[in-house]
Amino acid sequence: MDDPDYRPGKVFAVTIQVLVVVSLIAYTLTTLPGLSSETRAKLYFLEAVTIVIFTVEYILRLIMAPKKIRFIFSFYGLVDLIAIIPFYIFSGLDLVALRLFRILRLARVLKLFKYSSAIQRFRSALSMVKEELIIFGFVASILVYLAAVGIYYFEHPVQPEAFQSIVHSLWWAMITITTVGYGDVVPITMGGRVFTFFVLVVALGVIAIPTGLISSALARVRSMSSRQDEMHDSVREE
Amino acid sequence: MDDPDYRPGKVFAVTIQVLVVVSLIAYTLTTLPGLSSETRAKLYFLEAVTIVIFTVEYILRLIMAPKKIRFIFSFYGLVDLIAIIPFYIFSGLDLVALRLFRILRLARVLKLFKYSSAIQRFRSALSMVKEELIIFGFVASILVYLAAVGIYYFEHPVQPEAFQSIVHSLWWAMITITTVGYGDVVPITMGGRVFTFFVLVVALGVIAIPTGLISSALARVRSMSSRQDEMHDSVREE
Amino acid sequence: MDDPDYRPGKVFAVTIQVLVVVSLIAYTLTTLPGLSSETRAKLYFLEAVTIVIFTVEYILRLIMAPKKIRFIFSFYGLVDLIAIIPFYIFSGLDLVALRLFRILRLARVLKLFKYSSAIQRFRSALSMVKEELIIFGFVASILVYLAAVGIYYFEHPVQPEAFQSIVHSLWWAMITITTVGYGDVVPITMGGRVFTFFVLVVALGVIAIPTGLISSALARVRSMSSRQDEMHDSVREE
Amino acid sequence: MDDPDYRPGKVFAVTIQVLVVVSLIAYTLTTLPGLSSETRAKLYFLEAVTIVIFTVEYILRLIMAPKKIRFIFSFYGLVDLIAIIPFYIFSGLDLVALRLFRILRLARVLKLFKYSSAIQRFRSALSMVKEELIIFGFVASILVYLAAVGIYYFEHPVQPEAFQSIVHSLWWAMITITTVGYGDVVPITMGGRVFTFFVLVVALGVIAIPTGLISSALARVRSMSSRQDEMHDSVREE
Repeated sequence: MDDPDYRPGKVFAVTIQVLVVVSLIAYTLTTLPGLSSETRAKLYFLEAVTIVIFTVEYILRLIMAPKKIRFIFSFYGLVDLIAIIPFYIFSGLDLVALRLFRILRLARVLKLFKYSSAIQRFRSALSMVKEELIIFGFVASILVYLAAVGIYYFEHPVQPEAFQSIVHSLWWAMITITTVGYGDVVPITMGGRVFTFFVLVVALGVIAIPTGLISSALARVRSMSSRQDEMHDSVREE
Repeated sequence: MDDPDYRPGKVFAVTIQVLVVVSLIAYTLTTLPGLSSETRAKLYFLEAVTIVIFTVEYILRLIMAPKKIRFIFSFYGLVDLIAIIPFYIFSGLDLVALRLFRILRLARVLKLFKYSSAIQRFRSALSMVKEELIIFGFVASILVYLAAVGIYYFEHPVQPEAFQSIVHSLWWAMITITTVGYGDVVPITMGGRVFTFFVLVVALGVIAIPTGLISSALARVRSMSSRQDEMHDSVREE
Repeated sequence: MDDPDYRPGKVFAVTIQVLVVVSLIAYTLTTLPGLSSETRAKLYFLEAVTIVIFTVEYILRLIMAPKKIRFIFSFYGLVDLIAIIPFYIFSGLDLVALRLFRILRLARVLKLFKYSSAIQRFRSALSMVKEELIIFGFVASILVYLAAVGIYYFEHPVQPEAFQSIVHSLWWAMITITTVGYGDVVPITMGGRVFTFFVLVVALGVIAIPTGLISSALARVRSMSSRQDEMHDSVREE
Repeated sequence: MDDPDYRPGKVFAVTIQVLVVVSLIAYTLTTLPGLSSETRAKLYFLEAVTIVIFTVEYILRLIMAPKKIRFIFSFYGLVDLIAIIPFYIFSGLDLVALRLFRILRLARVLKLFKYSSAIQRFRSALSMVKEELIIFGFVASILVYLAAVGIYYFEHPVQPEAFQSIVHSLWWAMITITTVGYGDVVPITMGGRVFTFFVLVVALGVIAIPTGLISSALARVRSMSSRQDEMHDSVREE
């Protein structure tokens, strides 16, 4: 069923992916305020149809699986089940409870990756820089923490509301170091601003690390694969 | 007429490009509020002159084209036509209608690329990473969507105006993940802020991907072309 | 005690690192407003326990050190001492004085790097681009300064509060060039906005430099280490 | 005098550089509001001293130059002159006129580059990507312009103040595309927000180009110089 060389299998896979996107759009639209009950009914119908198709798909997969219990407890078996179960169990309950459980339905997004293969190249680049990314995460965390502690001591006496504690200051630290800069919490003392200055100087270098890691790893993967191609070519020529 | 080795052809091409920029500046200035009717008349005159020159150019190209019908329906033939037609048809109508159609005139910008050749290097780098860019677009879309869903559940109960629905939350998600951070819509709950924390950690890595792709592809194109130069040199030396 | 090949030494090192993080979290939580005296007591107890363990660790290291005076005045000897001393000396004094001295306790974070080895790869990449980073810091400083001077002349007459002096304008320059963009201080004159335009055009290029430096250095380190591996392999094959 | 191998020359160069920075700091501090007349007098004295030293330096250079007229009209000769002349001519006039002319004194910053040599490496990388940077500037300009035109049509009817004309919309376009995001001008219509969405998707790719160019060029310069080193080594070994 999932064999990409088998034409009907490919058509089936693409159809399922489109249905997942359609059901996600329907789900997104139901949160819009001021929908007429007619539109709401149509969206519910669309949702019911996709769920029924996903159920049929799940049953077909279960029937065709050589080892049934193994399929049920496999990663995608569980994901497929989690994507359809909430609809059957919670549709009778009141809306608020449903909303909280509906978030599980997003597991369907994982299905989108199920049939993808080109992602492999990114994976090899990622595994190449895994260790460096952990160190980066470590350094970045310490930077965010130190920034939060520093700004707390500078700004807490003047802005006790915005910089209530170091925990609250972490919000400012993260938003500033990632250069998002909402502007909802901003240092106003001279000390706090000079401190932000130095934090940003360090942050600029630290934020550059993931980009540097990814581009160097991708360059490596690319030159390695092209060298392999050359080797294959020279073998063929011989 | 477009032969870059033919001197008058080059002068002609540059003149047309300058005229395109002039007409775009004139168009931009007409939207300024509080213009005197005298200035408005001058800008209209400038516009009329450029349009007449573009019309003469279009007719010349049509006369010199070996296959006339083919030229009319070619990409640049159509673009040239779209750039001049609105002026003749809609200048008699009232201003509001004109404004909406004037946006087509921006197709003139495409003319600027018509005579460019150095852009080829970028193209080969882009085609090299096309597949990766599609996967990136896919991953980034899912990240933006998941961020919107998550923030909706955290912030909707507290800020029903700013986070009206998941559709409205997408605005926050996009502005945050691209690190633009206008600050018009900002999470205020502790849960929403912790969630933003994790979204930004992932976003930092995802946003680094296009830069990494482009720099690795450009490095590859550069080293390939320099290797070809070396091969040419060694052939000449022999 | 610090030998990574010796198993109990490794367990000991990891335990100390976890304790450092625990004591940092406890420290962070004590700044939260509205804590019950019970929670405060628990956090104080947690702090006391970690400090006692750090003291025992310090005494053990001192006993096991071959040259005792050299250890006391070594970098990590001093860091270990600074991390425990404030607790014993200042716990009897009032809270405000304590808070200011507590910042020294953050020196414990440095301990986290004490046992790390994978950081070596980053170090070699950093040392490779040290000189370029200094030049970058130099160019960036000049850019920030020039931006502050320029915006001061454009915006000071209109916004004398936000752009009080060149010193105050440096805040705007830093926040804009790093693309944080809080929006607390924003140019409103046409001249100031056009000036910001040009500052951002240059900033875009300058901000790209550290990323470019890091990614090129990491690519170099990676290709150098893989070439060394190849050479080792060919030697083995022979 | 400028020979870096000659020790007193080096000391002299560093002294001049420090003096340039000192005079810039003095200049920056004079713009601070609420300075006492005593501090103001001290800063004026500091300024006068540096100017006198720069004047002596200029006269010495003029005496030691083999071709005097050539030195006066050389780039650094003119810069040196522009850095000292405003002080002598305009110190008698009123303050406002002085302030405007003082901006010329920033030319002193250029002196800082006069004795630098390590900057050469950046220059070769820059010259390598000069053409690509021009194309990038071109594409980025068109993107900013198209973004301004688009947002004008979406937001002008609703926010006629913030998006007065396409010229005013350019401010929003630049601040958004560079991801600064002050938040002073923000789209509020659904159409404008969806448009911003697509602008940011394209901007993310375009903004990545300078970083990609710089990192690929620096990687090339680095590998070229190391290959040259290897060739020198192999020649020596032979």
